[in-house]
Amino acid sequence: MKVISILGSTGSIGKSTLSVIDMHPDRFKVFALSAFDNNDLLLKQTIKFKPSFIVTKNLSSKKILMDKLKDYKFDTQVLCGVEGYSFIASHELVTTVVAAITGSAGLIPTIDAAKSGKQILLANKESMVMAGELINKICTENNSTLIPIDSEHNAIFQVFSKKNYVKKVILTASGGPFVNHDINSLKDVTIEQALNHPNWKMGKKISIDSATMINKGLEVIEAAHLFKLNFDEIEVVMHPQSIIHSFVEFIDGSSLSQLGMPDMRVPISYALSYPERIISGVKGISLNTLPSLHFFKPDLKKFRCLDLSYQCLAQGSVHCIYLNASNEIAVEAFLLGKINFTKISELIERTLCKAEAENVSSIEHTLEIDNLARIKANKILKNML
Amino acid sequence: MKVISILGSTGSIGKSTLSVIDMHPDRFKVFALSAFDNNDLLLKQTIKFKPSFIVTKNLSSKKILMDKLKDYKFDTQVLCGVEGYSFIASHELVTTVVAAITGSAGLIPTIDAAKSGKQILLANKESMVMAGELINKICTENNSTLIPIDSEHNAIFQVFSKKNYVKKVILTASGGPFVNHDINSLKDVTIEQALNHPNWKMGKKISIDSATMINKGLEVIEAAHLFKLNFDEIEVVMHPQSIIHSFVEFIDGSSLSQLGMPDMRVPISYALSYPERIISGVKGISLNTLPSLHFFKPDLKKFRCLDLSYQCLAQGSVHCIYLNASNEIAVEAFLLGKINFTKISELIERTLCKAEAENVSSIEHTLEIDNLARIKANKILKNML
Repeated sequence: MKVISILGSTGSIGKSTLSVIDMHPDRFKVFALSAFDNNDLLLKQTIKFKPSFIVTKNLSSKKILMDKLKDYKFDTQVLCGVEGYSFIASHELVTTVVAAITGSAGLIPTIDAAKSGKQILLANKESMVMAGELINKICTENNSTLIPIDSEHNAIFQVFSKKNYVKKVILTASGGPFVNHDINSLKDVTIEQALNHPNWKMGKKISIDSATMINKGLEVIEAAHLFKLNFDEIEVVMHPQSIIHSFVEFIDGSSLSQLGMPDMRVPISYALSYPERIISGVKGISLNTLPSLHFFKPDLKKFRCLDLSYQCLAQGSVHCIYLNASNEIAVEAFLLGKINFTKISELIERTLCKAEAENVSSIEHTLEIDNLARIKANKILKNML
Repeated sequence: MKVISILGSTGSIGKSTLSVIDMHPDRFKVFALSAFDNNDLLLKQTIKFKPSFIVTKNLSSKKILMDKLKDYKFDTQVLCGVEGYSFIASHELVTTVVAAITGSAGLIPTIDAAKSGKQILLANKESMVMAGELINKICTENNSTLIPIDSEHNAIFQVFSKKNYVKKVILTASGGPFVNHDINSLKDVTIEQALNHPNWKMGKKISIDSATMINKGLEVIEAAHLFKLNFDEIEVVMHPQSIIHSFVEFIDGSSLSQLGMPDMRVPISYALSYPERIISGVKGISLNTLPSLHFFKPDLKKFRCLDLSYQCLAQGSVHCIYLNASNEIAVEAFLLGKINFTKISELIERTLCKAEAENVSSIEHTLEIDNLARIKANKILKNML
């Protein structure tokens, strides 16, 4: 029986995770759930799964939830804030932590899970982008294992074998809503258009990240850490159909790939049941009715953020932290209508120019650099308005 | 160090096997080579690899080879005939037997290798079609293992896991030279057209088998035995590009596939090195320049032999033996210009009507049924001329 804490249970990954868990009550016990803003859904989930703990963002949310839970006859404790997330990520009864808090906010609880030797099902790619080397070190020291949930990394994980048999990994990219747009038209796209991903239904931040293709760049950096690869051992290929979720090419000329419908329950069920396989509720792809599968090279001029990501991976940790931080600020500004779409990469690139390579020795150090990057990015943003 | 006997070293699989072995002298020792007709190539291979034994078809060939080898200073012994093939397949010094003799002639030495507990790299699909159940039984009793070399089965083997996680396997089929031909035009195709496979360079028999798609039918039967699957757990999908070599669909909706250039050194190197991977001399697929990948349902009216194969698998061993035997006779008649292309499936179907299901208890029994099937097929062929 796996005893599970879900960091971010009301987001799209969290909801899919619970829908798979719900199919297998004999295998999984929900120990803790957590949300940030969506207390209504957290309440519903609590009533259904009766976890021992739930965590919400602050004291006032905690109060509301405690009041509402009074009517029910099970003793779920309500916690709040950073300490709460860390508590459920590291509790001794927990075997498995689903790390599905988006953005840099997911870093600290992920680290706490790693320090406590948990099996971590990782959907929070920002953790690996910001602190991949440190997390790998902490995992090794504490016998913690990482299983990626991101569809591309999960696909690679399903077919990866010994590192010395692998020549390279190839991440597929749908190209998002602007895959067929002319580069010159990108400055005029609307927020709605940018949020409208053709294949996947996801949160706002990751949808914009897909539209700029920085999402793929962050995945390249994540893959480098997860699979201990150099930047020149990771390729990106455009594949608008999102049916093949990535490839691993071996030294013998053979490639293995994982395919499936674009439904996160597939990678989630694999991560939950690994090394076994369980029913996910998703049907297999119907090859007979499949559209033709296309592949082509990404346009790095059009998708500037992808190019910048490769450069950051080659430069090292500080640049990756700057990349992630400035992107979070740029996406927020775009979603608030402050800057247009092409200014996202511009803001990132200008912030990256301020980054100076150095050894990043600890998580505290990582957070300091992240903070500094945000200050610089915000300053540049102000000048751009 | 694997010590290897190659049954059929002068055919296309045999040559590719030797080209991979030649790249890894530290891993593989060629113990024995064998040919049927092509003594010139067998001699060249002998001079290069200096095996302990070579086998040719009969006494006169043996004499010729012995005379030619007299000039060389290594002591390769020359054997001939069925006893020779069996000797090298079962010799105690041999660890691994590459079973690459085409057609039913490969059955007996494959059985001998299985009885001697060898690791068998199986390219001879007819063995499994004729006697899959018996071979599985003999392998289990003698701790012999089968690793398929056929690109489709090798692809499945690379991604298969526990049987109870597998929902089905899907064999890809190029459709051969007539994939785009109208069904009514098939009766007029020439031998040259039928031999002209668009993706693979292979021997004559297997090229015609690809053109009728009975090759895929035989592969379905082989897959059923190799992976212990029912006929309704094996699908065929048309994929003219021959880039994806097969799929395994799992219970969670995930599918894994193996891809590579259409070059037999890829599956051969995997089979030779399993569970490791070695350089094969083949480059990986270049996804950026890949054509679009298409998939569609096979036309069972046009490719009658594929339909018949499924029916035989559902019927059982006797029908599979009849299918294989009548096909060998039909293909031979077609290659001699005696019957036209569409008569191949007609001859097979008429022979199958004479088959009567019974338990097949031994290899001798298998060969009796095979012999009877051939007599019946030849009789029907005579009536068709």
